[in-house]
Amino acid sequence: MVRIKVTIEYDGSNFCGWQRQQNALSVQECLEDALYKFTGGNITVFAAGRTDAGVHARGQVAHFDLPRTYPALEIIGALNHHLRPHPIAIITAEQVSDTFHARFSAIEREYVYKIIARPAPLVLERKRAWHIRETLSAPHMHAAAQVLLGKHDFSSFRASQCQAKSAIRTLNTISVLQQDEVISIHLAAPSFLHNQVRIIVGCLRQVGNNNWDAAKLSTVLKGRDRTMAAATAPACGLYFSKVSY
Amino acid sequence: MVRIKVTIEYDGSNFCGWQRQQNALSVQECLEDALYKFTGGNITVFAAGRTDAGVHARGQVAHFDLPRTYPALEIIGALNHHLRPHPIAIITAEQVSDTFHARFSAIEREYVYKIIARPAPLVLERKRAWHIRETLSAPHMHAAAQVLLGKHDFSSFRASQCQAKSAIRTLNTISVLQQDEVISIHLAAPSFLHNQVRIIVGCLRQVGNNNWDAAKLSTVLKGRDRTMAAATAPACGLYFSKVSY
Repeated sequence: MVRIKVTIEYDGSNFCGWQRQQNALSVQECLEDALYKFTGGNITVFAAGRTDAGVHARGQVAHFDLPRTYPALEIIGALNHHLRPHPIAIITAEQVSDTFHARFSAIEREYVYKIIARPAPLVLERKRAWHIRETLSAPHMHAAAQVLLGKHDFSSFRASQCQAKSAIRTLNTISVLQQDEVISIHLAAPSFLHNQVRIIVGCLRQVGNNNWDAAKLSTVLKGRDRTMAAATAPACGLYFSKVSY
Repeated sequence: MVRIKVTIEYDGSNFCGWQRQQNALSVQECLEDALYKFTGGNITVFAAGRTDAGVHARGQVAHFDLPRTYPALEIIGALNHHLRPHPIAIITAEQVSDTFHARFSAIEREYVYKIIARPAPLVLERKRAWHIRETLSAPHMHAAAQVLLGKHDFSSFRASQCQAKSAIRTLNTISVLQQDEVISIHLAAPSFLHNQVRIIVGCLRQVGNNNWDAAKLSTVLKGRDRTMAAATAPACGLYFSKVSY
């Protein structure tokens, strides 16, 4: 058996998410189907992160085992061929040690959340960003967000269906950048709770439009209560951008 | 009559282009239909540039005459409402003088051409960029492109169906920037010949992959012969980005 690590890009708009489900199309199912067409075998794919329905990826990482070695370009070419017409692309492939695990070996995950703040509806970025009609202050959002840096109990920023045993996570990076009407929120952590990024973004929007000040965000964090936080931001603005090992 | 200037964004993928045609859907037709629903009148829309099928716009400008004044936000809101579900959005609207003409008053037009150079197929940028599988050198492309700056006879970079009387044009800006796998080519000129940007980009690709050197591009320009230039780059990478008055 030869273990292969791949980097994957996908448009999550029309998938039920990463994880295979009975009655809806997942990224995992498309990849495993492509692997079946390539090798003739039933091969399970393990991902670094199980993205939700509608969430995109530029740098999802996954691993699987092949019965023999192939040149990396052959793996990339064959899988991309068999993935068509699904909006999923294998960007890189490389052989890794048998001890590598896409999920458990990861030391840091990065997400980017994209907001477009303007009155006009989205056209070129439809389903690619969160459309917010009001003006947002990215500098205010960035300054307030720094209270979330470091190790905290993130219970306030955790989906009710989150299955993690502990809500304690360590946020390594959170930065809010603006270029014209586009606001990008960059987050990095060893791991995230379910919906953590999207709930944080929902709260930062309240800071950006001056409904909340920085102190309020701090109060929400310390409250360890999901009902204190804002509504979860929509999936379409979220990009799983990078995994480090 | 009140003359209105609007800035328009559109995803050109599924339109026959800007200009109204008998048997295919154009951006102009969608806008004039929206104006009819808004005002009840048949109103003609004049654009700064008649983009081809598949070409996108972030900053197309157009003008039209309304029978009476409306607040700008009402014009934007009503047109965007009636434009749904077409991928066209009115970004700004303002009243202008009767002498303003979106096409004839323009003093500079800007285009951006987006290339993604990587082996993997496009997913998130499908129909939003030209996918090139080989590696391109953006610095080589940028350096060579400077020979096109200024006033020249651009006959080599002109579609056979171009209706302009003269092929003499003045290129104010041409720059090639790279960020990771994305290469953006920025061009500005008072006006462009039909397909001029796309033929220039087709030639720059030949420079980027070392099929051509900078001297060859100069020879093609001086030759004033379309058959010397490379194939026209596809429409999907082209964005009409700005018009100055």
